[in-house]
Amino acid sequence: MFFHEPELQYEVTVEEPDPQFAKELQQAIGGVEGEMRVALQYLFQAWATPKEHEEYRKLLMETGTEELGHIEILATAVTKNLRNATDEEREDAAQDDMMRMMMSGQSPRQILSAGESAMPVDSNGLPFNGNYVVASGNLAADMYANVMAESTGRLLATRLWERTDDPGMKDMLEYLIARDTMHQNQWLAALETLDDPVPVPASFPQEKENQEFNYAFMSTHREEREDPDMPWTQGESVDGHGEFSFVQQNSDGKGTAPSPDSSVYSDPNRE
Amino acid sequence: MFFHEPELQYEVTVEEPDPQFAKELQQAIGGVEGEMRVALQYLFQAWATPKEHEEYRKLLMETGTEELGHIEILATAVTKNLRNATDEEREDAAQDDMMRMMMSGQSPRQILSAGESAMPVDSNGLPFNGNYVVASGNLAADMYANVMAESTGRLLATRLWERTDDPGMKDMLEYLIARDTMHQNQWLAALETLDDPVPVPASFPQEKENQEFNYAFMSTHREEREDPDMPWTQGESVDGHGEFSFVQQNSDGKGTAPSPDSSVYSDPNRE
Amino acid sequence: MFFHEPELQYEVTVEEPDPQFAKELQQAIGGVEGEMRVALQYLFQAWATPKEHEEYRKLLMETGTEELGHIEILATAVTKNLRNATDEEREDAAQDDMMRMMMSGQSPRQILSAGESAMPVDSNGLPFNGNYVVASGNLAADMYANVMAESTGRLLATRLWERTDDPGMKDMLEYLIARDTMHQNQWLAALETLDDPVPVPASFPQEKENQEFNYAFMSTHREEREDPDMPWTQGESVDGHGEFSFVQQNSDGKGTAPSPDSSVYSDPNRE
Amino acid sequence: MFFHEPELQYEVTVEEPDPQFAKELQQAIGGVEGEMRVALQYLFQAWATPKEHEEYRKLLMETGTEELGHIEILATAVTKNLRNATDEEREDAAQDDMMRMMMSGQSPRQILSAGESAMPVDSNGLPFNGNYVVASGNLAADMYANVMAESTGRLLATRLWERTDDPGMKDMLEYLIARDTMHQNQWLAALETLDDPVPVPASFPQEKENQEFNYAFMSTHREEREDPDMPWTQGESVDGHGEFSFVQQNSDGKGTAPSPDSSVYSDPNRE
Amino acid sequence: MFFHEPELQYEVTVEEPDPQFAKELQQAIGGVEGEMRVALQYLFQAWATPKEHEEYRKLLMETGTEELGHIEILATAVTKNLRNATDEEREDAAQDDMMRMMMSGQSPRQILSAGESAMPVDSNGLPFNGNYVVASGNLAADMYANVMAESTGRLLATRLWERTDDPGMKDMLEYLIARDTMHQNQWLAALETLDDPVPVPASFPQEKENQEFNYAFMSTHREEREDPDMPWTQGESVDGHGEFSFVQQNSDGKGTAPSPDSSVYSDPNRE
Amino acid sequence: MFFHEPELQYEVTVEEPDPQFAKELQQAIGGVEGEMRVALQYLFQAWATPKEHEEYRKLLMETGTEELGHIEILATAVTKNLRNATDEEREDAAQDDMMRMMMSGQSPRQILSAGESAMPVDSNGLPFNGNYVVASGNLAADMYANVMAESTGRLLATRLWERTDDPGMKDMLEYLIARDTMHQNQWLAALETLDDPVPVPASFPQEKENQEFNYAFMSTHREEREDPDMPWTQGESVDGHGEFSFVQQNSDGKGTAPSPDSSVYSDPNRE
Repeated sequence: MFFHEPELQYEVTVEEPDPQFAKELQQAIGGVEGEMRVALQYLFQAWATPKEHEEYRKLLMETGTEELGHIEILATAVTKNLRNATDEEREDAAQDDMMRMMMSGQSPRQILSAGESAMPVDSNGLPFNGNYVVASGNLAADMYANVMAESTGRLLATRLWERTDDPGMKDMLEYLIARDTMHQNQWLAALETLDDPVPVPASFPQEKENQEFNYAFMSTHREEREDPDMPWTQGESVDGHGEFSFVQQNSDGKGTAPSPDSSVYSDPNRE
Repeated sequence: MFFHEPELQYEVTVEEPDPQFAKELQQAIGGVEGEMRVALQYLFQAWATPKEHEEYRKLLMETGTEELGHIEILATAVTKNLRNATDEEREDAAQDDMMRMMMSGQSPRQILSAGESAMPVDSNGLPFNGNYVVASGNLAADMYANVMAESTGRLLATRLWERTDDPGMKDMLEYLIARDTMHQNQWLAALETLDDPVPVPASFPQEKENQEFNYAFMSTHREEREDPDMPWTQGESVDGHGEFSFVQQNSDGKGTAPSPDSSVYSDPNRE
Repeated sequence: MFFHEPELQYEVTVEEPDPQFAKELQQAIGGVEGEMRVALQYLFQAWATPKEHEEYRKLLMETGTEELGHIEILATAVTKNLRNATDEEREDAAQDDMMRMMMSGQSPRQILSAGESAMPVDSNGLPFNGNYVVASGNLAADMYANVMAESTGRLLATRLWERTDDPGMKDMLEYLIARDTMHQNQWLAALETLDDPVPVPASFPQEKENQEFNYAFMSTHREEREDPDMPWTQGESVDGHGEFSFVQQNSDGKGTAPSPDSSVYSDPNRE
Repeated sequence: MFFHEPELQYEVTVEEPDPQFAKELQQAIGGVEGEMRVALQYLFQAWATPKEHEEYRKLLMETGTEELGHIEILATAVTKNLRNATDEEREDAAQDDMMRMMMSGQSPRQILSAGESAMPVDSNGLPFNGNYVVASGNLAADMYANVMAESTGRLLATRLWERTDDPGMKDMLEYLIARDTMHQNQWLAALETLDDPVPVPASFPQEKENQEFNYAFMSTHREEREDPDMPWTQGESVDGHGEFSFVQQNSDGKGTAPSPDSSVYSDPNRE
Repeated sequence: MFFHEPELQYEVTVEEPDPQFAKELQQAIGGVEGEMRVALQYLFQAWATPKEHEEYRKLLMETGTEELGHIEILATAVTKNLRNATDEEREDAAQDDMMRMMMSGQSPRQILSAGESAMPVDSNGLPFNGNYVVASGNLAADMYANVMAESTGRLLATRLWERTDDPGMKDMLEYLIARDTMHQNQWLAALETLDDPVPVPASFPQEKENQEFNYAFMSTHREEREDPDMPWTQGESVDGHGEFSFVQQNSDGKGTAPSPDSSVYSDPNRE
Repeated sequence: MFFHEPELQYEVTVEEPDPQFAKELQQAIGGVEGEMRVALQYLFQAWATPKEHEEYRKLLMETGTEELGHIEILATAVTKNLRNATDEEREDAAQDDMMRMMMSGQSPRQILSAGESAMPVDSNGLPFNGNYVVASGNLAADMYANVMAESTGRLLATRLWERTDDPGMKDMLEYLIARDTMHQNQWLAALETLDDPVPVPASFPQEKENQEFNYAFMSTHREEREDPDMPWTQGESVDGHGEFSFVQQNSDGKGTAPSPDSSVYSDPNRE
């Protein structure tokens, strides 16, 4: 059950409204690296977590709820970049070909569909997609998904930081980057509480997997090549359950398809 | 540049064709956890890797190329589950309401669109989507994405393994599970070769991020609660660059939207 | 800024777990008529609402936040329908062809991708799509979108109510149906506070639209037909700004396309 | 069964071809607010309407068929904005960096995929999506969906009208805006012919819904607040079946997920 | 400009309503091989066709308009398969587990979202996608796209014909199959009127393409193999402009990516 | 089973990096006319081809594998257009409003999501979609799909060729155009080896289709018109199995929908 306060989690100011930056900010709202993804991901993970992992459920609920507020922060940043122009600036823009060109970099739908507002879409106007959310029902897999989500999320935020000179926008992004630092760390901390989780899923009895190829690096180079002596071709495996080796891809498995049923009319010729 | 051999990377046999399992196998072809995702992900990551990281480029190319062969293995498994029924069985099926019901679990498009063949779609018939592919241009982020991809991929393979009794299918899945074990390990080994990569991206100067909230666990519980003393609320952070703390979400950032331009006709009333 | 409590907004009980109903419930989570749509729709509308419409912003924030809790209720209902089977029942099911057939109606991804959990997808496994959200930047258009959303939402809930005999599920749906009744009423009440909002957008100067065809019902029947004397072909228009009439579709606008530039190679013949 | 005439429903002229406007017009063709949506929506609604509602079926068929002609009008407008440049202008453009920049606002696919033609996509190149169409099988829900569709459609047309100075384009849009005025009115007129349709669906026996919360405005504000005395918190409800009240969100429903079956390998630890 | 008659282009009768067949018929409405694709494809091609190809524009308009009526035929077939059950049958079904199982093969959204109606989606509930439509702006390319569309469309119709025993449904499909026969033939006839159209686009000056590899079959077999003496490895090319040859894939093009700008933070290590 | 060599199939050089062209090149990677489509299309077709058509399977595998290398070529071209700017140029760009405007034509996600790399998306950032792939299970239908794919592919390549002045890019495109010439020819050659394949599928017994309308051109013009004496309205049909005729669309099939079940609450009125 959720509650809200009208205040933002962090102040948002914009000195120089920039419609093109408003478009780029959409990537952090509805993009695959954005806040809608992480908010929903942590909430769906929480709702799937059973009693015996109660502490992780709480952890996920706390952070999922925080991320909802990040969508709000960014939506506010978008409207402030799209709308805050003075009437004077607007008139200039209308009369100025140069400005019109600059506006060609805008997102048309932020105007046409949303009346100078934020939308649940990415920087190309692609709508948010529920399949961005990873909630696998396995805690270790989910934690790796969360570390990855915060890694690409922080990467996006730093790239946005590079593309603006507005002090208000830089300040907001520095806050969001900091939260991503924390979230990367907290998911890694959660991973450390697990007991020998790799390979994921750990509960699958590993003796049932193929024992010949489970620690073999397989070269697919056209011509056979030497073991390059890399940390992934020799030595103990990272999970501590095997020894890396180096092999060439090779098999004589027959690549065939049986004939389909006549009722699907696969025959290209007249009967 | 790619080359092929007509043989499969691993033998595929099916004793009892099972059209419903053919549908479930599609998840491992075109699903978000499937082989198309990892094949394309590793290849696009490789193509983005510059000279100074040549060894990683090779690693990615080798494995991306291997994964192309996994799509082929699974496509073969699908046709064998859809087509290998004897004519006798087919006639029975046609006459048997029970069988017809069983067939209601099939994917209609595997018959209607593909004539009893595999498709680049998931187990619900949802087409593969290029946005499943993560290739961020940052090696550490990519390696975490790869660990995650192999975690959800291995999880899927073990769940499929539980849902079939066919010895050929079990054997094939035990091979694919083993390869996922190796791939999880190799991406973790690659992560270990990096120098202090967390928080990702490490090259962003961390002193520029907000220093008040970058290691603070933020509680969004409606009523303030005590620090639960978890590994993510106190002690040294996992990246070794900070100290975890526990705070309540709190701010007085003003949540407002400026007024939009009159040209977008936001006013609900007649002027 | 958002906060949560671990309790649900309404109790969820399931007496007889039903995996097929779990799949149908997904429509009310991630479907076009579902709770993700309304939650995000009301929040994005709120975030776009400027100061001069503060009361509507509050109204939208209150209800958007409530809807987040409805996703949670339904996600809980899904896990309870997928998981609550006793071990005994599970063993039976495994041995029973009949049960296996019944299971063919399940959603494969709820098992394969989510480990018996809810997902941000609809009843066909189609992922939630950000374009389901309507937040137009015009309050009257948004209110009509909200009435419509609650109408299709309540319709969906009543159809789900018909498809279950489980008393817990019926009770939960009766609660959700009641909330949809309220929400339909509150958006209609908001519409009534507006001053002459039709045609939407009211602020566009109506004298600028074409005055010949703005209140004419246009028949596209192949053969000319008589005015059927319906409430939309004669009498005062609903908005009170015109008089309905009945006309036949007719025009001699030239239907042509200019020749494209030679650089797009439209010519089908050799030059 | 459909028939065509080669003439357009309304004349389309373009004085100054404008490739960027051609891109924006796509929103009115294949966008969520566009003509493909309404044409298909009304036709699918018509085809679902049974004999006992014959008059509504006719109404829907007449207008759905008209809307097909609006797609045609807009497609013509797009080709005229993309193609009508004189050869002289084209040469200039090629030599002129300034023009090249201006062209950066074009849609690449209108050139690359369609050879300077219209496409069934929106202004970002996002393809039309069948889920934009609402045809719920309930007439009242459908009529609200239609009012909403014509509201966002007219809003889009007025915004496009603001973004062009071309007299031909303005004239065409003034026609389309007028038709949207009519269509809003006709769907509202159809709603008025229904007998007490709210809450939708009216045929669900309302005594079965939860009687405690069906007319209660629920505040989700973190701190309890006073009834703001708004038209949606007190007084008779709009449907006339209840009395609005104001309550705080509150419940002690247990938020839990049962443990999943061991066959989905949810356990993150080794067994 | 379009007109309609209330009659169907071809009579639709259903003797035994079959909800599972109703789901499969959706593939022929909103699927990639369906009638929405061809209707829109021919209309968009027509609208892009300039004066100098007027006869083709007429051809496309005539057939595109016909295909709109095929959507209508199929939508009628769907409602008749979903709705025509007598009340008696319905009661039986409700009491009968066997029937309930059979219903597990239905499309949930045809009930939940559409109230037993047709939808603009395919047999998996995937919404129609505007990118199924090919309208390239080049007549020869379009004609090949049309032959292909009618080939996969007729293939789909024959497979549906195999999956029903209902005489009414067989009769309807035999009509649609016949129309696809005609349409394949008419697009091939249109191709024959073109002057030397291959390779498409013919108007590109062929001497500008690479002259070494434009008629060479390239083997990508891992080990070099002999020319298999197939009609595509030797003899005159089909377009009559070259001579087929057989070569091995081979090159020493350098596969590299330059280093990205530091502002995208690609460096995985701390600076 | 696949193998790779680190060399490209064809050299890629870029003299003047052009970020806008990098965006347009994406159409040839992940667009509907792009190399991901053909690569996957030919491979899925190959995997579905049974023993009795072994030569076609080989043909498809050879070319599908080649196309994988074309994705690689284009991905390399994209990074070279995005990254090869000298540091000096970059500094200029940062200080120069003009350059910033020019950059407004870039794809934001190539920077924000991919760090100046190629992505599996089209020129609008729309992700590759598995439904672009046609693998019908019928060889003739597939061959027509392949001719069409190579036609729209070559058309795209010639349009890209027009939009660049860079000699390296022109040279690369001339190579790709040449390969498309070959591929069009080889699929046409394969079609010629088939025995009387039209209408597709040829194996459906043609006497079962409706014999009245299978060679009749049907006019949907609102007013009856004369047979225009075109090659598709008279003379022998292209497949040689019929005689073209010209008819007016006409029927009295009843356009009706039965009443839906009361459980879907279609009634708009209170009961």
